[in-house]
Amino acid sequence: MVEIKQNLIVVGSRPARVDAVDKVIGRASYATDVRLPGMLVGRVLRSPYAHARILSIDTGRAEKLPGVYGVVTAADLPPLEGDDAVGEKAFRDRELASDKVLYVGHPIAAVAARTPEIAQEALDLIRVEYDVLTPVVDVLAAMKADAPILHHDMRTRSLAGTGEKPTNVAAHFEQVKGDPGQGFAEADVIVDREFRNPMVHQCYLEPHSSTAVWSDNGGLTLYVTTQGTFSVRSHVVRLLRLSMSQVKVVPMEVGGAFGGKNSSYVDGVAAMLARKARRPVKVTMSRPETFMATGPNSGSVLRVKMGATRDGHLTAAEATLIYEAGAYPGSPVGSGSHVMFAPYQIPNGRLEGYDVVVNKPVVSSYRAPGATQACFVAEQVINELAGTLGFDPIEFRLLNSVKEGSETVDGTVHRHIGAIEVLQAAKASPHYTTPLEGPNRGRGVGHAFWGNWGACSSVTMTVNSDGTVSMVMGSVDITGTRTSIAMQAAETLGLPLDRVKCTMGDTDSIGYSDTSGGSRTTVATGHAAVKAAHDVIDKMRERAAQIWEVDVQAVVFDAGIFHVPDDLDKTLSFQALAELLPRTGNVVIGVGNVDVADWGSCFGTHIADVEVDPETGKVTLLRYTVVQDVGKAIHPMQVEGQLQGGATQGIGWALYEGYEFDAAGQMLNPTLLDYKIPTALDVPDIETILVEVPYPHHPFGARGVGENPIMPPPAAIAEAIYQAVGARVCDLPITPARILETLGII
Amino acid sequence: MVEIKQNLIVVGSRPARVDAVDKVIGRASYATDVRLPGMLVGRVLRSPYAHARILSIDTGRAEKLPGVYGVVTAADLPPLEGDDAVGEKAFRDRELASDKVLYVGHPIAAVAARTPEIAQEALDLIRVEYDVLTPVVDVLAAMKADAPILHHDMRTRSLAGTGEKPTNVAAHFEQVKGDPGQGFAEADVIVDREFRNPMVHQCYLEPHSSTAVWSDNGGLTLYVTTQGTFSVRSHVVRLLRLSMSQVKVVPMEVGGAFGGKNSSYVDGVAAMLARKARRPVKVTMSRPETFMATGPNSGSVLRVKMGATRDGHLTAAEATLIYEAGAYPGSPVGSGSHVMFAPYQIPNGRLEGYDVVVNKPVVSSYRAPGATQACFVAEQVINELAGTLGFDPIEFRLLNSVKEGSETVDGTVHRHIGAIEVLQAAKASPHYTTPLEGPNRGRGVGHAFWGNWGACSSVTMTVNSDGTVSMVMGSVDITGTRTSIAMQAAETLGLPLDRVKCTMGDTDSIGYSDTSGGSRTTVATGHAAVKAAHDVIDKMRERAAQIWEVDVQAVVFDAGIFHVPDDLDKTLSFQALAELLPRTGNVVIGVGNVDVADWGSCFGTHIADVEVDPETGKVTLLRYTVVQDVGKAIHPMQVEGQLQGGATQGIGWALYEGYEFDAAGQMLNPTLLDYKIPTALDVPDIETILVEVPYPHHPFGARGVGENPIMPPPAAIAEAIYQAVGARVCDLPITPARILETLGII
Repeated sequence: MVEIKQNLIVVGSRPARVDAVDKVIGRASYATDVRLPGMLVGRVLRSPYAHARILSIDTGRAEKLPGVYGVVTAADLPPLEGDDAVGEKAFRDRELASDKVLYVGHPIAAVAARTPEIAQEALDLIRVEYDVLTPVVDVLAAMKADAPILHHDMRTRSLAGTGEKPTNVAAHFEQVKGDPGQGFAEADVIVDREFRNPMVHQCYLEPHSSTAVWSDNGGLTLYVTTQGTFSVRSHVVRLLRLSMSQVKVVPMEVGGAFGGKNSSYVDGVAAMLARKARRPVKVTMSRPETFMATGPNSGSVLRVKMGATRDGHLTAAEATLIYEAGAYPGSPVGSGSHVMFAPYQIPNGRLEGYDVVVNKPVVSSYRAPGATQACFVAEQVINELAGTLGFDPIEFRLLNSVKEGSETVDGTVHRHIGAIEVLQAAKASPHYTTPLEGPNRGRGVGHAFWGNWGACSSVTMTVNSDGTVSMVMGSVDITGTRTSIAMQAAETLGLPLDRVKCTMGDTDSIGYSDTSGGSRTTVATGHAAVKAAHDVIDKMRERAAQIWEVDVQAVVFDAGIFHVPDDLDKTLSFQALAELLPRTGNVVIGVGNVDVADWGSCFGTHIADVEVDPETGKVTLLRYTVVQDVGKAIHPMQVEGQLQGGATQGIGWALYEGYEFDAAGQMLNPTLLDYKIPTALDVPDIETILVEVPYPHHPFGARGVGENPIMPPPAAIAEAIYQAVGARVCDLPITPARILETLGII
Repeated sequence: MVEIKQNLIVVGSRPARVDAVDKVIGRASYATDVRLPGMLVGRVLRSPYAHARILSIDTGRAEKLPGVYGVVTAADLPPLEGDDAVGEKAFRDRELASDKVLYVGHPIAAVAARTPEIAQEALDLIRVEYDVLTPVVDVLAAMKADAPILHHDMRTRSLAGTGEKPTNVAAHFEQVKGDPGQGFAEADVIVDREFRNPMVHQCYLEPHSSTAVWSDNGGLTLYVTTQGTFSVRSHVVRLLRLSMSQVKVVPMEVGGAFGGKNSSYVDGVAAMLARKARRPVKVTMSRPETFMATGPNSGSVLRVKMGATRDGHLTAAEATLIYEAGAYPGSPVGSGSHVMFAPYQIPNGRLEGYDVVVNKPVVSSYRAPGATQACFVAEQVINELAGTLGFDPIEFRLLNSVKEGSETVDGTVHRHIGAIEVLQAAKASPHYTTPLEGPNRGRGVGHAFWGNWGACSSVTMTVNSDGTVSMVMGSVDITGTRTSIAMQAAETLGLPLDRVKCTMGDTDSIGYSDTSGGSRTTVATGHAAVKAAHDVIDKMRERAAQIWEVDVQAVVFDAGIFHVPDDLDKTLSFQALAELLPRTGNVVIGVGNVDVADWGSCFGTHIADVEVDPETGKVTLLRYTVVQDVGKAIHPMQVEGQLQGGATQGIGWALYEGYEFDAAGQMLNPTLLDYKIPTALDVPDIETILVEVPYPHHPFGARGVGENPIMPPPAAIAEAIYQAVGARVCDLPITPARILETLGII
């Protein structure tokens, strides 16, 4: 346990984000702003079929079109070799299909041309012969024995081993705690329900874009929009069999990500085209491409059963989670099962999960991956149990809440958590203590646990001779990270924030850093910044000792001042000592690189008030409050922004969003006109209450905050709708039609 | 003294330069290749007069021209304040004249516009009222009591104090060793001559270009062509009163520099325009602007007197050096006086120098600043003495050569030098041992000392998990530095060169590094790279100790292998350990930042064979050899390239180059058609002989090599011409007309 710093000056303040105004006025540079001499436009040919065998690809006419500088297909990838050829083939087929397409939008070929028009014409000239197969787009249908099989080499992986028959079930797991049968036998009330949710997209406003340029000595530079520059590097290194030092990934400003920019979609293709064309190539996705060929969250089917005694104690819980992986395995079903019952002390339980491939886009991470639908179903059932048993919903949660040392159904042991504090703050909040009045109005509560992440971050820090500090981090700033990391450095160095500048480094100029995801960045990169600052302080103490001709141990750093106690002549401010550095061996460079293995989880409770028009089913959000344990808010306004943004996306899940497919696997709503996301008119000013239960292993006590707030809204809103008009809707999104159907009106 | 590494594998080899092919095929990105969204063109209004008072500047019409986004003058600079207002005013007047223009081309105003045509039209609309003054363009005329005065606040600085009257003599110094009068009395032969040379330009092919863009939070980014990104940062920080961390300077590839890109010419103006226009602005100079308004070498007048005994020993030497500073003080006269007699043991001597302002461009550094003309005059006189006394010129130099511990006329003590070895190698060279035959042919020798430099360099180095290494240096690569620094790192790490990638960092991402000049970069940045590599090795030894659960002292690194001696199980290659780093606390980052205070000087001897057409005076270079002490050649082919390039520029000084001015201070030959530089047709294949006398304080024994080779050519060629046709020409360049004049033919 580290000693958490007290009496903070910079940490906990609310300075302007360094990137704010540039983004607002259009001066910030995004990936599509990159312009290089001789740069070409890259475009991707995508499958019109959800399931088909590729018989042949003829790029000859496209290659001959004037203005076309290169056409690539899977045949341009390095030959498969080695033991892991099966895994490698799947990895590469996702980039460019070789023998089979598995969803509408699956990339097949790409062209680089002088203009977008020529590129499009070239795509039209590529002839692909298909043997069209029957697709399977429903996750339950995909599990049937006679379902069309996507991958004939796929067998179910489970604890019992690997299955023998070709299947669409990539993985199956089951976890049992105690005796669920006995637990349900002890219950006075049992609720058992099935829920469904569709695929939903992160809907970042900025689509994926990547510009690649090769030097003749084999070096590749990529200008990208990503959450993790090193993830892009790994992807391209693996795809094209390069060494890591050959690839330089330069992060541009990111126009929204939310987990959807952890994966690479156009970086590999841009690199392949640029190599073939021997010119820079930029590939930018359109909105329909973004919907159809990037990674949304899993659509899923969940069955949940929970039991409680009359005095309000949960006795058992069971869940079956069936998650769509899309065309290749890897749904976040494990994450969903991990978090869904985690807020509660439940003596007996069972969790069963299925990862199932279907002919749809390959799912990817989306803010608390796989957790929002799991929270939705568990919390709906909790609300129903509380209501049935006559408990106040927060009171019922408090009664069953985990606390220090509690073990969850999946075996996690909670440490240093703020669950009780959050529920108490929600109960005492202005919102919850104000009665909701009026017809067709209702209030609902949702509550969520999210585990967060730590992992690797790197920071270097140079002291300039005017006493300012320039620092580079390996993390991409998607949430005001430059500001929150600079704040932690400034606090440690005893400097005002405007003396510390934090920039994003490319992969050549800074050490490995994991992606900006998993609510890890402020925490883990903060750790790295504090470590680098201590390295700077130690090196500056050495310089002071050298100047004063004393032992380094005699030099103390305190609140921005280097001094020798009891020797008034030996005192130098940070800036005064910085000015002496060039003459004592050059400036000082500090390094902080960490692999954070101990980080804090967090809990959040949301309160939603709605009014439902009983004739049309239209839901109006009247008031919304997010209460969350944030450990220590480094920059409270940015934390509030995360809570508001996460809740807004959760509101989108609850009321509006969802992919719609026809039976052939064609997405019916791949534009932002047809796919509705919440606008400013749909969402009230979201109130936030920051509960600060410091996490003792972070220098300032911070916890990750970004993912948790997407989880509770669907359950809170569903319950509010039930309270308003008596409709308990189990499928997302809760559209007016579904409300009216549930009420038997249509 | 450090232990110099032996048994080298990478150092001393001749790999391809990493930047070579990209530069040849046009793929490398230079400053003019920068393209930013909304970028404007900046153009500078320059004085048509060499000397004038500015009565008024009216930018009103220019500002109103459609397509113009900003006009700046000196009035846009922050107000002058503080004690150093006089020095600051001169600094700023060089950027944009406020009350007076001092040379043709002096910047007065600048505009940013949508197109170059609009920018030019806007410049034409700016009305400047001048009170035209008499200019002074000859350095001796400028020293006269009744000369027009450039700076009425200027007084001569000298050891005796500061003068009282306004003057154009900015500084005067005199150094005496022994008793020069006595020394000349002891001489049997005395040679006393006066020499002149004109201003010459570095003639880098790429003109200056700078693109500036501001973020709204006050951050300025500059994309530049420069030898020193931190020099540009200092310049702009001082000009616009910014903090260092506000300014990020990004180095682009450099298309030639030779000392001429140590100074900032358009960076400040680009920054001012971009701030006013609130858009990116690129300012690129034309060739005439480059000639007239950047920093050539000083034109100068030198008088030299040397005496020797009949048995060939120098007894005394005297020199008066009068150097043009251009419009503001700061000629390299001190550098010239430092080196001119430094190769010889001379018991008595006197050096006197003058720094004189004239109405010409402000001089700047040019490869061995101020030294070539000083070497030319001293070596001409040495050659004349040797000839008069009947000595072989190399023999004569060997007889008088400095050796370990010798003290020069200006008091420098030589340490660890290779003077004798170089002269001996020249004497034994294939060139010198081959007699020159034929009419009108002659051979000459020149010999030079150059002190080199050390100073500050920073390197950071990250170990990637595939065992490759990515390193960043603060030095700009103008001479193959990425390759030669990566070689020193690879050698230290025991890795093949292709596992180590070295890139140039911007000023935000790496610690302070001095400019790539003074022949310092391979040496000092090499020091930093070796230090960073040792930091990496130490940190990897710690990881190995952690993995093996042994004390770190037990882990030995040797030739790329980490191991515990006598324990065969505990052995990991660099790559194998690198692969384990992510799981043992993230990758390793090494830091090397140094202020090198101990570096080696170097000596060079050149041999030139010429044939002179006695009717036309045309000189043909028949054969040319450079012999130089290089300490240890890190990359012999790059060293040879430096020797050949330096000699070629010296040949240009000797035979072709020089600014020509009319009496009004107008440059008459400001294009590469009118200002002749050597082409491939003018220069034979230059032979090189690398003499390796290791410098004991560099890890590999390296010495700086880049500047010395420009110094000897004029003297060697002048002597060869004298030997060929009997014409001893004392003014540069040695044109056919001057030869014929000296011969009395015209």
